[in-house]
Order: sequence, then C-alpha cells, then structure tokens
Amino acid sequence: MADARAPIFEKVALIGLGLIGSSIARGARAYGAATRIAASDASEQVCARVRELGIADETTADLAQTVTGADLVILCVPVGACGEVARVIAPHLSPGAILSDVGSVKGAIVAQVAPHVPASAHFIPAHPIAGTEYSGPDAGFATLFQNRWCILTPQDGFDGEAVRKLSAFWTRLGANVETMSATHHDLVLAVTSHLPHLIAYNIVGTAADLEEVTQSEVIKFSASGFRDFTRIAASDPTMWRDIFLNNKDAVLEMLGRFDEDLTALRRMIRTGDGDGLFALFTRTRAIRRSIIEQGQDTAAPDFGRSAPREE
Amino acid sequence: MADARAPIFEKVALIGLGLIGSSIARGARAYGAATRIAASDASEQVCARVRELGIADETTADLAQTVTGADLVILCVPVGACGEVARVIAPHLSPGAILSDVGSVKGAIVAQVAPHVPASAHFIPAHPIAGTEYSGPDAGFATLFQNRWCILTPQDGFDGEAVRKLSAFWTRLGANVETMSATHHDLVLAVTSHLPHLIAYNIVGTAADLEEVTQSEVIKFSASGFRDFTRIAASDPTMWRDIFLNNKDAVLEMLGRFDEDLTALRRMIRTGDGDGLFALFTRTRAIRRSIIEQGQDTAAPDFGRSAPREE
Repeated sequence: MADARAPIFEKVALIGLGLIGSSIARGARAYGAATRIAASDASEQVCARVRELGIADETTADLAQTVTGADLVILCVPVGACGEVARVIAPHLSPGAILSDVGSVKGAIVAQVAPHVPASAHFIPAHPIAGTEYSGPDAGFATLFQNRWCILTPQDGFDGEAVRKLSAFWTRLGANVETMSATHHDLVLAVTSHLPHLIAYNIVGTAADLEEVTQSEVIKFSASGFRDFTRIAASDPTMWRDIFLNNKDAVLEMLGRFDEDLTALRRMIRTGDGDGLFALFTRTRAIRRSIIEQGQDTAAPDFGRSAPREE
Repeated sequence: MADARAPIFEKVALIGLGLIGSSIARGARAYGAATRIAASDASEQVCARVRELGIADETTADLAQTVTGADLVILCVPVGACGEVARVIAPHLSPGAILSDVGSVKGAIVAQVAPHVPASAHFIPAHPIAGTEYSGPDAGFATLFQNRWCILTPQDGFDGEAVRKLSAFWTRLGANVETMSATHHDLVLAVTSHLPHLIAYNIVGTAADLEEVTQSEVIKFSASGFRDFTRIAASDPTMWRDIFLNNKDAVLEMLGRFDEDLTALRRMIRTGDGDGLFALFTRTRAIRRSIIEQGQDTAAPDFGRSAPREE
C-alpha cells in the first residue's frame, strides 16, 4: 500500500504565479503533492518575487524549460491568455503529461486550448473555487483550497487514470473534487459567481456616480450593506473582464432571469405589496441557513467584522 | 468637571428588545450610560427572556409603566410599528423627556411619530448603522455600536441641549455621531443599505428558482461570490418589508439608476467591450480601498472565512 504522503506528481509546472498559482505552489509543497515544483510567469518582476519567496524549486520566464519533463502542467493565467500559452508549450509537453488549468470558465478554455494539445497528453480542465480579492504571488497561501470545491471537466469521460491522479492532487491540497461537463460548469458558475460579481460591480459603480449623495458618504455609511458588495467588486479586473467575455451566453441568460425578478420586486414595492415582500425575504433566509449548514460560510454574525463580543 | 463615567440619563426606557434594543441595554449598562434601564416588549416570551438574561433593571409588557419617569425613551420596534407605540406612550412621557428611535428610515418615522409627541418632550429620530443578520434579545451584544455611525435627524436644528445629550449617549456606547436632515438620511441609506439589500434578496431569489441549476448546486458552490449576498438576504423579513414600504420613493429612484447602469454593462458584455469592462472594474476597486482605509471593513482577505493561513 502506497504511503499516503507519497508525492502524486514528480514535476508540477505552474504557469502564472498570481494568487492561485502561488497558492498551488505553497500547497503542493506543504502537503507533499509534488516532488519538484517549476514556476513560470510572463512578468520578470513576478519571477524575481517567486524566487525571493522560495516557493518553487525552479523559476524562469522560459515556458519550454518549465514544462519540459513535467507530468502535471497547470495554467494559472487569466482565461484570455490560456490559448496562447497552450500553443507555445504544446511541443514541449512530455508524453503522458496532464495539462490542466484553473480558469473560472470552462467552455471557452476548451475551445482555446484543446486544439493545441498533442494526442500524447491528457487535457483536463479544472476550476478550484477558492480565492480572495487580492492578487499576485504574495497573496497566495497553502490552505487556500481547504474545504473548497474543485470542479474537473474532463472531455473524455469522468474516469480514467489521469482524472484520478489530478483528483488526488487537488484532494491532497484539501479540496473536495467534483466532475461535470464544461457546459454545465459554465451555467452553475454563471449563477453562483459571475452574476453576483456583475451585480456587485454594477452597484458599486452606481453608488460612485450619484450627485445627491457624495462618494464620501457612501464610504462612511457602507457598513449598512454596501460594503458586502465592495469586496467582490474589488476582484482582479483582468480576470473578470476575461470571464465575462468568455462566458457571455450563460451570463446574459442569468442576467435576464435576474432582471425579470427585479421587475416583479420593483412592482411589489411600488404597489405596497407587503405580503409579497415578506414571503420573498423569508424564502431567501432559508437558503442562507443551508449554506451555513454545509460549511460554505460561518454563522458568525457580520463575519467577525464587528468589534469583539464582550458583555 | 463631571466624571467622564457619570451616567448620561437617569432612566432609559427601551421599547422592543430585539438585536438593537438588547444591544443598547447591554451597552448602556456596560459603559455606564444610564442609571437605570427599563425594558418593554410586546412579546411576553421576549420579556421573559430579557428577565432571564438580566440585561434590564425592570422588564414589563406595560408600555406606560416602562416610560414613566424616563428621561430617554428609545423605540426599537420595526419601522411600521413606531406610530402606534408613540400614540400609546405619548400621554406618559415625562416633561423634558427625549423620545428617539433606531429605525432605518427617517422621513416615514417623523410622519408617523411626530404628531403624537407632546410639546413638552423632545423628539430626535436616530439611526445607529450597525447590526448583524440575527434577530432577538439573545443576538445583541454590548459592543455592537463600537466604531459604527449613528445618524441623528433632529427636526428643530442640529444643536440644543437635547441633541447634545442624545449624542453623548451614543458616543458613550462607542458610536460616531453625525447629524443630517431626515430626507438626506433616507437618500443616503437608500443607496448604501436599502438598494444593496434589495439586490441581494433578488439574486438569492433568482438563484433559488432556476431549473437548469439545482438549489443544492447553488449552495455547494456558493463560495464563489453568491454567499456574500446571502448574508444580507438573511436579514429580518419584517424589518425589511417595513423599510421598503416606508422609503419607497428613494429606493425606486436608486433602483432606476442601478437599472440604467446595468443596461450599459449588459451591452458591454454583449458587444465584447473589454476596455469598458476593465475600466469599470478598476474604478470599483478604488472604492473598496477607501472603505478599508476608513475602518468600515477589514482588509483581511475573504473576511477570514478561509481556513487559517499557514505556510
């Protein structure tokens, strides 16, 4: 029986050392998921910082060198950059290597990356659902994926040795692995992630543009609800631009539903339909309870942002 | 020079012992803001619980008895109930007593309460901007108002002895006090609080009603953005029904602006305007920074809901 702590991959190559890439590097080392970690980033500044942090065994801007000999290569660059990186590294992938990514959309990634992947390699798109509103190699940490979901969307079916190995890697980093089709992934994420971000970006933009209420008042009194939106509206602009451009159909579909519901809600307010409002607000409260029960958030009031409790 | 810890009021009467009322009771005692605290709640069950908790010096369902002899009376009931409570207690208010409230809307409160207030009492509407998504006397805590804003909307001008005393009371409980007109308050809160709650209620409702994505998937993958909305969509349904019914005009006005901006954003996605999206997402990030700088939220990534950081 194999040692539970035996490395799952010999050489893991990470392309892009932002929040996610640097967290994978830290996690893979902390939990012994890889014998060796090679890192590459298009920015020389990021490469230098990764060397200073010492979170990889080799760090270079040279993509070919980074992926050579790797049995797992993970693209941790913005969605819009994956196709070009795949094109460059494809000739250097080892036979049998697994190529994966961490992008928040999967259909567009498949369309952009798959054409470049040689038949000798296994392409398994992945999406670890974890993150903070910070970016860059300093923002990462080893426990980022603990108790978070990682969705795999293998094109060739949901079993097979390559899928099992990649699944074992993410499990070692603390994630719970789920598999589904790329299309279903994009619909699920459109509602759980992309629409919420879109709405948050929009409301923060609206609040910033008002004439009757100053920006300083909005900031001052933000604790009354607004600030909950500003955290996700502070997420990386490049990453989110790419997500909306690459999951357009599902996002516009979900936005259409949101809009229909908002029209109904607006009518309830205008006509003074207190019972209708009360019924909706009671229903939404139950969903919050389920999220807490399933450990996807804490029940601590106000997320511990209030002053410490003491009587 | 008076002792800084001398009580500010002799007898503070609190009507309604939910999250806010019970936090005022605890805070007033913890920081010595009142010599005596009298509590009243329409629910006998709540009264019994308040007696068990021992957070007031006298607790009764009898409103007249509670306010008799009080130099400060605070209505901590839902906005829609303030008018009726004011009518009942008005004949029992002591000469010179200050009558205040904690409602999230101010124009409607003035319209409902002011007609009942005798000329011998001072009516100063107030709104402490603090709370959690929990309700009831057990949910309160003494430090709830620490470093939070409390807005006073006095009708007779922003100075005078009564305003100074009420201001001192809230300052003693740890709040920062600001004064403005009731009309301006309602506009500011419509954007910083009421619109965010409306949007959060709506998106949680939309997500619950989808056919293509199951409710269990929405809950499972909520960490990707959705859960940030569920906290505020779990707020007290009665309280929020009353807020929307009582600040209708300002809410519908802000919702109109939000809708215009959303139409523009939707067009950017449909036409693939990456530069437009990037510009908006960069602008909203700056507002988040200001909120953190002003201490209205912590910079801790993900509000500390991730597993603890360790390398």
